[in-house]
Amino acid sequence: MTPEPTIRRLAKYLELLKNEIANGVEDISTTTIANYLELDPTQVRKDIEYTGIIGKPKTGYNAKELYSEIKKYLNWDNVKDAFLVGAGHLGSALLHYDNLKEYGIQIVAAFDVDRKKIGRKLNEVEVLPLDKLQNLIKRMEVKIGIIATPADAAQEVANLMIEAGIEGIWNFAPIHISAPEHIIIENAQLTLSLAVLTRRMIENKIEKTTMGD
Amino acid sequence: MTPEPTIRRLAKYLELLKNEIANGVEDISTTTIANYLELDPTQVRKDIEYTGIIGKPKTGYNAKELYSEIKKYLNWDNVKDAFLVGAGHLGSALLHYDNLKEYGIQIVAAFDVDRKKIGRKLNEVEVLPLDKLQNLIKRMEVKIGIIATPADAAQEVANLMIEAGIEGIWNFAPIHISAPEHIIIENAQLTLSLAVLTRRMIENKIEKTTMGD
Repeated sequence: MTPEPTIRRLAKYLELLKNEIANGVEDISTTTIANYLELDPTQVRKDIEYTGIIGKPKTGYNAKELYSEIKKYLNWDNVKDAFLVGAGHLGSALLHYDNLKEYGIQIVAAFDVDRKKIGRKLNEVEVLPLDKLQNLIKRMEVKIGIIATPADAAQEVANLMIEAGIEGIWNFAPIHISAPEHIIIENAQLTLSLAVLTRRMIENKIEKTTMGD
Repeated sequence: MTPEPTIRRLAKYLELLKNEIANGVEDISTTTIANYLELDPTQVRKDIEYTGIIGKPKTGYNAKELYSEIKKYLNWDNVKDAFLVGAGHLGSALLHYDNLKEYGIQIVAAFDVDRKKIGRKLNEVEVLPLDKLQNLIKRMEVKIGIIATPADAAQEVANLMIEAGIEGIWNFAPIHISAPEHIIIENAQLTLSLAVLTRRMIENKIEKTTMGD
């Protein structure tokens, strides 16, 4: 299994490569990537080795080749259907994220229990009643579920999804989701990221105070 | 510096503790936390040690005390003002996230360059023109900036923020932001989390195929 920090950095390299290719860059070295992203070149090289691509002695990598290898490695080279449950503000923002296709997924339907939301279209995607979720997962063989419900509904929604055949869940609800081992649960809970920000800010302050002693 | 995975797990413990306290739980052990979140108890104990709180031999921790110590440790025990730049779909979702206060921040103003958005109120928060950003950061001594702009505007917005006195940036734009060392940049880019999901799903498949050989 590729370590999570490596996967996250590979996604960042891809972002950079996309820009560099758009700017006409043909070859790119680990040092260039490292400098741009303020990382250690050895780290960058190690991360890229996971994809199996081999660099050339002096020039590094062919930018387009590296781009497509990383894209394949992240499983972003083909677009998979995804279902979203919870058509609130966050769900709506995800539905309006037109570029998701570049990242390997496309939200093809949304589900909610709120009658005011059902039947509406959000960025061309219809909001359906939750009780249609399981049938549609089976019929369309959807493997990716996105949970953007309140915390107290999330586990129940996850259970419905898994029972119907979902293999990976992208969870935005602020709660831990229990699932059988073979199901992938990825927490995109914004609050976990916010914790890193606010803690680092206080650490910065502590450091400054200590240095001033 | 506390390792990032520890900070993220502490935020998850807090979530769990909140529920447990609401359910009337008074004491909680690392084993209970570990079981619930499917983690190693030693890991949980190590994480909690960072906060400085000391458990009791048999019962573990007083749930309320642990809750308040972790909250303090994450810098969530006081509400700090934050400015948001980019009042699109994601920005709007963040503005509607009423519970942010529980996580130590409150978005007090939003900024955009789009005339159609300026002047509107999103969940009681007014959208102001971007050219007022720097003055207001200085006047209100705001230290936290949130970037929810398209990628090509993000670095410029970050520069404006930092120049005016912002010390920590929560970045949702899909681009690397360069900043002086003393500025905290926390990437909440959803695509990095999505990469972990899609990669893990393909790893699962590879594993299954290999096992079937």
